[in-house]
Amino acid sequence: MNYKMIGRYISWILLVEAVFMVPALIISLACGEMHGVFAFLETIGMILVVAGILFLLCRGARQIFYAREGFLCVGLGWIVLSIMGCLPFVLSGEIPHFVDALFETVSGFTTTGASILTAVEPLSKGILYWRSFTHWLGGMGVLVFLLALASTETRGDGFALHILRAESPGPSVDKMTPHIRDSAMILYFLYIFLTVLDIAFLLIGKMPVFDAVCTAFGTAGTGGFGVRNDSIAGYSPYIQNVCTVFMLLFGVNFNCYYLLLLRRFRSVVKNEELRLYFGVVLVSILLIAWDVRGLYATLEETFRHSAFQVASIMTTTGFATTDFDLWPSFSKSILLCLMVIGACAGSTGGGLKCGRVLLLMKSLVRSIRKALRPNKVQVIRSDGRTIDEQVLTNTNAYLAAYVIIIVLSMIIISKDGLSVATNFSAVLACFNNIGPGLEVVGPTCNYSMYSVISKLVLIFDMLAGRLEIFPMLALFTRAGWKNT
Amino acid sequence: MNYKMIGRYISWILLVEAVFMVPALIISLACGEMHGVFAFLETIGMILVVAGILFLLCRGARQIFYAREGFLCVGLGWIVLSIMGCLPFVLSGEIPHFVDALFETVSGFTTTGASILTAVEPLSKGILYWRSFTHWLGGMGVLVFLLALASTETRGDGFALHILRAESPGPSVDKMTPHIRDSAMILYFLYIFLTVLDIAFLLIGKMPVFDAVCTAFGTAGTGGFGVRNDSIAGYSPYIQNVCTVFMLLFGVNFNCYYLLLLRRFRSVVKNEELRLYFGVVLVSILLIAWDVRGLYATLEETFRHSAFQVASIMTTTGFATTDFDLWPSFSKSILLCLMVIGACAGSTGGGLKCGRVLLLMKSLVRSIRKALRPNKVQVIRSDGRTIDEQVLTNTNAYLAAYVIIIVLSMIIISKDGLSVATNFSAVLACFNNIGPGLEVVGPTCNYSMYSVISKLVLIFDMLAGRLEIFPMLALFTRAGWKNT
Repeated sequence: MNYKMIGRYISWILLVEAVFMVPALIISLACGEMHGVFAFLETIGMILVVAGILFLLCRGARQIFYAREGFLCVGLGWIVLSIMGCLPFVLSGEIPHFVDALFETVSGFTTTGASILTAVEPLSKGILYWRSFTHWLGGMGVLVFLLALASTETRGDGFALHILRAESPGPSVDKMTPHIRDSAMILYFLYIFLTVLDIAFLLIGKMPVFDAVCTAFGTAGTGGFGVRNDSIAGYSPYIQNVCTVFMLLFGVNFNCYYLLLLRRFRSVVKNEELRLYFGVVLVSILLIAWDVRGLYATLEETFRHSAFQVASIMTTTGFATTDFDLWPSFSKSILLCLMVIGACAGSTGGGLKCGRVLLLMKSLVRSIRKALRPNKVQVIRSDGRTIDEQVLTNTNAYLAAYVIIIVLSMIIISKDGLSVATNFSAVLACFNNIGPGLEVVGPTCNYSMYSVISKLVLIFDMLAGRLEIFPMLALFTRAGWKNT
Repeated sequence: MNYKMIGRYISWILLVEAVFMVPALIISLACGEMHGVFAFLETIGMILVVAGILFLLCRGARQIFYAREGFLCVGLGWIVLSIMGCLPFVLSGEIPHFVDALFETVSGFTTTGASILTAVEPLSKGILYWRSFTHWLGGMGVLVFLLALASTETRGDGFALHILRAESPGPSVDKMTPHIRDSAMILYFLYIFLTVLDIAFLLIGKMPVFDAVCTAFGTAGTGGFGVRNDSIAGYSPYIQNVCTVFMLLFGVNFNCYYLLLLRRFRSVVKNEELRLYFGVVLVSILLIAWDVRGLYATLEETFRHSAFQVASIMTTTGFATTDFDLWPSFSKSILLCLMVIGACAGSTGGGLKCGRVLLLMKSLVRSIRKALRPNKVQVIRSDGRTIDEQVLTNTNAYLAAYVIIIVLSMIIISKDGLSVATNFSAVLACFNNIGPGLEVVGPTCNYSMYSVISKLVLIFDMLAGRLEIFPMLALFTRAGWKNT
């Protein structure tokens, strides 16, 4: 195990975090929020000290890196990132308890958007900016950002690809280009371009600049932290519709945008995952609009709220324009189902991912065929290519891990005595990185009533959900740490 | 596709059903319940006519039978069995609506124990006997019973094994003996022996004979239909404890009993599934007893109710001695978790099965190991033997089908407007063949408030759960019916 190399990477991660904290510091300074200024200065100082020590300790690391180092690096990196990232909240005194601040920060970086705050408007601007920015950084991944910057000349079995695999959502990672660094740069270019486009459209709708930037961060990372207590409900219908469209756009596999850049339009149109994604979105909007038709005055309002909520839950963003906990059971069940499905692989969204759902369904159909005709060889194809058996096995194991973690988490947090629906939706909402659940953790409520232990469980769920389970589970296995 | 052969088998199934209806007829006669006598006589007559017509139509069937015929035979066989089996309820006027009667009968044969009746005590004795007997016949399987009787001299790829596979619960069927007929006979011998033993122990506790027989049927099939409105709560602590023990015994893989007969004690003690099963039971009892300690007067009572409920839910029986819907969330969450795990493979219990849970966990661990060390070949062992990859693939596909069916069912039945917890637990309780769920479908309540469409969905879930999904899904695929 190449611990030194892992230490080096973590020190770089911390450096990136410190750099990205500077804008928040400037905003605090500009708004004259001195407690915020000191909190950010102290945090940046501490980060630099820790990063410096780690860097010095890990000098002379061998340039050999295997899959297990990649997993450890991602798992540990995200934990360290979250612990340092929550310090501004604690030091500024705006979220005084450490576990609460950690919950909020992990919720930010994992793009969950679950909050322990009863109101966000009392927060200072600098803190509010940092809270929303965690979504943006976590959405595409801090290690992918590093890969885009640094050259990765290591030996071993393709370290950079392992990092990309461990941090990017989805059952299999397509390398867009032969060089990982180029892929990472293209990802971040597309990400920044779409974010800027989102901000522009929001500004056209006369949204204040600060609100527009923070909302765009929350949309881009499919996170869901807003800057107002009523999330997006208080903004104009135009702004709500812009959010709906951009949430859906950020839920699309970024490979599709790259293919668009390359003018390979047919590949995009024929993409099975994309078809499933938009198909589910469309059907869900129609079903919910029909189910809630009596609750809103006009057809426009009915469809606006249905579309917004479907986009928000399916892409695992978690913004709200209306309290969907008051909707009929049928609509709530559809939303619970969308929570599980999630967005496309290779997007900033969470959940099982459409691509994985597609593979699970195909593998199920094959098993039925196989049971009916035991002697016939069957392969599974997706977008015309044969799927590797290893990907299928991993996808199925992923589902098993998914179910086991949800069941165990639900049991532990149920010790707090909240209702079954609350606990079930809380675990689903955290694990799938959505944010709001039903009942006590519904869109107008928050996670503050959970005990410290439950919050730690939900923190684990958020990280496991964002990092696709395996890097987090690897931290708890002997094989993940063993020196061979 | 050998339709004639399938027709022949269905006619035999009907014949068995008609014969097993005779005791119910005699009880009705003995109790002077003339409407019951006529209902049974009419039903038996109709069954004989249908079976006769089928038998004549399907003369001269070729003796060739493949896997797909096995699946169709089991799927169709159970549907026909249920439709004819519900006629006594309809014709006697005790459950006048056909869909209600079908729900009750499917719930019986699939050993679910979910009821649409608000009270069972007003039912006549003959009907009550038939209702409980459906559990006993469904528990071990009507086709397995046929296999035990008939010689199966067909060509093809092992028809009898396919029937046994399709009707017996669990990820893989062990042939106890080289001859399927012998295996089926041993299974039924053990089943009858344990049932008689159960009746004897209940009679020692001074339970009325009729109650003892019906309760033993419900225990043996891990069904859960009782003969009293308060299930088992009104009986003495001794009787409750006898039920606890026998529920657990009927949740054990019957192969273990066969091994005991062969004096291979070590194989039994070392059986991984058995260890997991009793381990989960023990831990759950302790956790729940600790959680509900304030609710009962004495320690004995606390443990009695905890153990009874754990055994009842884990083995998917569904008897109740107390209203566990009033227990704290923690205990309810554990029970929901037990609903999913279920009993051992090769028992009369439902659920995912301990053996399958074991395989899923092992396959998950392997996937993590494989991700950490991509170049190492890993096999999965269970009880010292290497598990076939096909069994693993099927187990994983099973979990996918399980999740998909639960999610879709939940969405459809939520149209009735009941709460999320009610719908979720109703689907889990029906699909895993348990019976009572939480809230509106809790142990003191019933399924009567669901609409006809929801009842049909739950009927499908019960059948899919009992027949391990694939035979039911095969009925809806083109490959299941195609003539090749």
